[in-house]
Amino acid sequence: MAFKAELDGHSFMVDADAQFGGQNLGPKPKGLLLTALAGCTGMDVVAILKKMRVQPSLFEVDVQGDLADEHPKKFVTIVTEYRFEGEDLPVDKLKKAVSLSEERYCGISATLAGNVPMQSRVLLNGEPV
Amino acid sequence: MAFKAELDGHSFMVDADAQFGGQNLGPKPKGLLLTALAGCTGMDVVAILKKMRVQPSLFEVDVQGDLADEHPKKFVTIVTEYRFEGEDLPVDKLKKAVSLSEERYCGISATLAGNVPMQSRVLLNGEPV
Repeated sequence: MAFKAELDGHSFMVDADAQFGGQNLGPKPKGLLLTALAGCTGMDVVAILKKMRVQPSLFEVDVQGDLADEHPKKFVTIVTEYRFEGEDLPVDKLKKAVSLSEERYCGISATLAGNVPMQSRVLLNGEPV
Repeated sequence: MAFKAELDGHSFMVDADAQFGGQNLGPKPKGLLLTALAGCTGMDVVAILKKMRVQPSLFEVDVQGDLADEHPKKFVTIVTEYRFEGEDLPVDKLKKAVSLSEERYCGISATLAGNVPMQSRVLLNGEPV
């Protein structure tokens, strides 16, 4: 089941779990879609916060999705958690950067919008804001 | 702009082009969505052909997408090319495996269906079939 992916001059393996005949030589395809969303919106937020002169000490994006039980096992929900850490960060600007990405800039979000119910949460220093 | 992606026990970098402040330390997010689709449908086709006892000597999946010109730069078309090589391969079974993936099994296709016009082509030993 393993495929060698070649993309933007980089190559890596994509594989299935053992239960589907794979050997876990690389990430699974479904997770790559979530990674695409995480990277897309994460880069937006970094770029927007930079323009706002807001500099978190740490920024992580965690994307989780649920799949349909029956074939085709499409995504039925996607939840994106934006985790910021840092002192004296302006909550309103963090949330504004996230909403600008989700509503205006992120091409992956826009590609999925309407087909998959998507939620998001913003955490600052471990607390929802 | 670079993020370290952690997925299924594997980690790799995701990055942007230099024009958007990246250093090309890893693939870009938009391409990861296409890779997700390629891997998902490719694994389906391998599994279906195995059940049909059809064994190509080579099988590649090439996925190309076009993005909108304006923000949000979502996918506006995706074209998937299935490339098989081998002697005496049954064209009808190759095409059946592809259509079963596209219409019934591939969860990534189903996640995108309706939002993005998708086309596909099947090539056998370099010739469209």
